[in-house]
Amino acid sequence: MRSHTKHLTFEIPRRMEFVNITPQVRAEVQASAVREGLCLVNAMHITASVFINDDEPGLHEDYRRWLEELAPFDPSPERYHHNRTGEDNADAHHKRQVMGREVVVAITGGELDFGPWEQSFYGEFDGRRPKRVLIKIIGE
Amino acid sequence: MRSHTKHLTFEIPRRMEFVNITPQVRAEVQASAVREGLCLVNAMHITASVFINDDEPGLHEDYRRWLEELAPFDPSPERYHHNRTGEDNADAHHKRQVMGREVVVAITGGELDFGPWEQSFYGEFDGRRPKRVLIKIIGE
Amino acid sequence: MRSHTKHLTFEIPRRMEFVNITPQVRAEVQASAVREGLCLVNAMHITASVFINDDEPGLHEDYRRWLEELAPFDPSPERYHHNRTGEDNADAHHKRQVMGREVVVAITGGELDFGPWEQSFYGEFDGRRPKRVLIKIIGE
Repeated sequence: MRSHTKHLTFEIPRRMEFVNITPQVRAEVQASAVREGLCLVNAMHITASVFINDDEPGLHEDYRRWLEELAPFDPSPERYHHNRTGEDNADAHHKRQVMGREVVVAITGGELDFGPWEQSFYGEFDGRRPKRVLIKIIGE
Repeated sequence: MRSHTKHLTFEIPRRMEFVNITPQVRAEVQASAVREGLCLVNAMHITASVFINDDEPGLHEDYRRWLEELAPFDPSPERYHHNRTGEDNADAHHKRQVMGREVVVAITGGELDFGPWEQSFYGEFDGRRPKRVLIKIIGE
Repeated sequence: MRSHTKHLTFEIPRRMEFVNITPQVRAEVQASAVREGLCLVNAMHITASVFINDDEPGLHEDYRRWLEELAPFDPSPERYHHNRTGEDNADAHHKRQVMGREVVVAITGGELDFGPWEQSFYGEFDGRRPKRVLIKIIGE
């Protein structure tokens, strides 16, 4: 069994943003030399996501507005108990649960076994500081 | 290490529907001859889900209504920016995020290591065309 | 390839609660002797979750209130069709979809490859009876 590990770092200037990380994931699959296996990609921070969807700016704008409706940013201690700790990012912990922490992607014939429009994204909900993403590949 | 790959195709006549795919997943576990390992099952389309829950028609009706409340179908370009591209399925991209893209199931003693009521479903949110699901099994 | 399987049982006295299970997951990683691999942790029941987030009581209170808003407990047969079967836990099947069924965590150098604040939780949405969680580890 082969294994391959890569930690990426992102520092997003805005609070909320989505970054297409498919090229980085693809590069690690190649570097791993795994032909058949699984590729885990996860946010290592609990106010961020890794998810798979469409690379279409209108959809990303829709996601931003929808997540803001589902879990509005509100630094006051009234809405979110978490913000009574001195944090202001309780909303980000909620948004991340909707979008998920991780994806697991099959590797078949040495390539990500993706459908035609699948692209992998880093989802940031509390940016403006360095945060990490993990790529772990196992297989043969 | 053994690996096994299967692509299934579904063409759902309705826009939104849930299909129990547990028999197909179980058949691939058997075909793989893996006794101990992991089984990834994922939608290969970004307006569809694979998820695990109960095979109870009332619950599925509840999910349909709840997802429609959280992310209503609306082909107009007003609600969803994504639909300004000529698409009408922005809602489906949102519904899929709530229900998830994939499941990873343990294989123990040659069987899906499921709890008593766990059943795996293909969740379609923008049907009426052929779409694929991937089953990837690795183990020994 | 090594594999390791552990079933945990929880009986939560309240309907909804979050329990930090990181020590149990860590102990199974150690018991597995896997140095490089993947660790799947999943709820075996469809009204429960395993998720990764912060071990902060205020955030857990926020999650409880937010999930109650998104999918309120309501045993009547009016709101949820599922409760026409005699069940009263339709809300729990919805809450679990928001929080997810499972997490997959990388094992690197014999340890869970976690970010600084990542902690794994069992999320119970219909407690007061014994329910199981599965830990499955594969690797080398």
